[in-house]
Amino acid sequence: MDLQNLNNPNNHLNFSGGPGALPESVLNATQTAIINVPEVGLSLLGISHRSDWLRNVLDETEENLRNLLSIPKNYHVLFLQGGSSLQFSMIPMNFLRGNRKVAEYIVSGYWSIKSVPEARKEGQVQVVWDGGDSSYKRLPTAEELVLSSDAAYLHYVSNETVEGLQFSYLPGIAGIPLICDMSSDFLSQPVPVERYALIYAHAQKNLGPAGVTVVLLRDDLVHTIPSGLHSMLDYRTHIVGKSIYNTPPVFALYVIMLVTRWLRKDIGGLAAMAKINATKAATLYKVLDESGGFYQGHAVREYRSVMNVAFRLANRDLERLFLKTAVENGFYGLDGHRSIGGLRASLYNAVTQSGVEALAGFMHDFQQRYG
Amino acid sequence: MDLQNLNNPNNHLNFSGGPGALPESVLNATQTAIINVPEVGLSLLGISHRSDWLRNVLDETEENLRNLLSIPKNYHVLFLQGGSSLQFSMIPMNFLRGNRKVAEYIVSGYWSIKSVPEARKEGQVQVVWDGGDSSYKRLPTAEELVLSSDAAYLHYVSNETVEGLQFSYLPGIAGIPLICDMSSDFLSQPVPVERYALIYAHAQKNLGPAGVTVVLLRDDLVHTIPSGLHSMLDYRTHIVGKSIYNTPPVFALYVIMLVTRWLRKDIGGLAAMAKINATKAATLYKVLDESGGFYQGHAVREYRSVMNVAFRLANRDLERLFLKTAVENGFYGLDGHRSIGGLRASLYNAVTQSGVEALAGFMHDFQQRYG
Repeated sequence: MDLQNLNNPNNHLNFSGGPGALPESVLNATQTAIINVPEVGLSLLGISHRSDWLRNVLDETEENLRNLLSIPKNYHVLFLQGGSSLQFSMIPMNFLRGNRKVAEYIVSGYWSIKSVPEARKEGQVQVVWDGGDSSYKRLPTAEELVLSSDAAYLHYVSNETVEGLQFSYLPGIAGIPLICDMSSDFLSQPVPVERYALIYAHAQKNLGPAGVTVVLLRDDLVHTIPSGLHSMLDYRTHIVGKSIYNTPPVFALYVIMLVTRWLRKDIGGLAAMAKINATKAATLYKVLDESGGFYQGHAVREYRSVMNVAFRLANRDLERLFLKTAVENGFYGLDGHRSIGGLRASLYNAVTQSGVEALAGFMHDFQQRYG
Repeated sequence: MDLQNLNNPNNHLNFSGGPGALPESVLNATQTAIINVPEVGLSLLGISHRSDWLRNVLDETEENLRNLLSIPKNYHVLFLQGGSSLQFSMIPMNFLRGNRKVAEYIVSGYWSIKSVPEARKEGQVQVVWDGGDSSYKRLPTAEELVLSSDAAYLHYVSNETVEGLQFSYLPGIAGIPLICDMSSDFLSQPVPVERYALIYAHAQKNLGPAGVTVVLLRDDLVHTIPSGLHSMLDYRTHIVGKSIYNTPPVFALYVIMLVTRWLRKDIGGLAAMAKINATKAATLYKVLDESGGFYQGHAVREYRSVMNVAFRLANRDLERLFLKTAVENGFYGLDGHRSIGGLRASLYNAVTQSGVEALAGFMHDFQQRYG
């Protein structure tokens, strides 16, 4: 068996909404480590999480993230389990429980909808935007948001993965803690971390394999956490435990280190990454815009996501044919989320411009044939 | 680069307390899948968790577990995140909150100690055994346990990983739900699942990579869960969601499927596995017993664990020399848990008899030289 033969060309044409494609160099290094982490001489899957080696992995990953995002010193960087779904609960447990203030939530699509019921279990919640109608084709403008100057916090989702909607500005008002679910555009572009109280993002879009959630938490918030929380659900546990209070998913953490290293060294940072991502998205939206309505984008133009291009064809039969033909031509993961159907091309960091151009070419051909 | 050269011989001499060694054939199949899951044509790390492929992975794993453990039909098999530490909280949230009954806990070592404070956050807890003195060198006999016939449940740890103590009988009384943390001896031997209400085990001992916790839950308990729990912390969410309510750690689940397949097909089931494990443990305890006190076992003989052999040398300097010499000779992971120090050889399923014999030989030689 030869490693070269294992390098299947399909991975760079994976447009899955998540878990998403990872860079080829990261996959190659990970493959080696499954049998032998070079600096340890053991399988990646059998190394103790209390080893100096894992501490170095976590330290480098944190350092890479601090460098990439210019994270200020007064922010903790945590690696947790349970996905963003557990953050939907941990955030109100830590910052709304026992608080007489109201937590404000912007509901702009599938993922932000899911965070609200969990928050209501801990205190008062005000939905400050509910999407207007129920189709979530656009985001609120800053002017449309009527916000309290006395809220516990404002929660929003920077990029709605399912609908393909992305904020191009920071909502909120000065002095109110701003909390953001950045799961699907984290590390896709520079972000002014210092304007947030808490940022969270699960790994399986731009960061690595599913099973890890990164939390950036401003230190002053830590002092407001109520007592009596369950250990695993209290951010302080993981700050004190340096993200190894209990056994973390060692494998996923190692891959995340490799991905953040790739972003720093191979890509050259988030400004460079953002430029690449903007070009990829422009390439694909151009296909939609020039299709004369054959490909119908879901999002209103000003709110289009650079990460997730959600679109439809005239009917479900044609969409099924599109998906079938796509797979036959080596394009994977193009089905839309089950909640809204349709089609979706996710252009996470590891998807290359050449991959997007190949997809654009395929979409042209498909339209010529069936348009 | 040649795969053959990547196969480092050290993996079969990894005696780590966890994450522990995995079978070589599993590592090889996993390595291939990092670039290309043969039946999909994509990297294991980029496959959607909503794919038919992952559903098949979960279904096969459940089927393997049901076969290996003869799990009755009225038990749910769940794959969760957060480790056993999150189970310490989920169990009392689901089965003690709002309950006027008292939950009974057997405290027999490091891990059972940690479960009690979380339970106290949800209701009344009675510690029915506290180890006698604080050194946890033995377990209670059935006669020593004074149990209520009206408890909410009885919780215990079947194998204390740190101290190397293992129950050889099932504690508890008929009619009271028996809940067991089986993290470090799950799948090491047959277990009468039908006598338990809930069994949980994190993966990183005998099952696969860290990041997954298996829960076996008897259906009648589900109907007693109170309302108002956070979605991710309510067992019903994961029953309804068939373990993919949110994105699961796809990688770890795939490896667990391979390990359970290996147990069924290569090992031939848990009775065969138990026999192998008993021989391994006997080989190593013989070294301790015949060392004339050079190697001092931690556990009282009748309570010795088949999985974890905890022992000491005369002083810390000699232990440090042992660890250093061991690594030089290719034996890894032999340091004791940080809470009690000393030394520990963990003999999880993937550790082979030949590996244990090699360790026994090394220990003989070390004694000859320094005894």
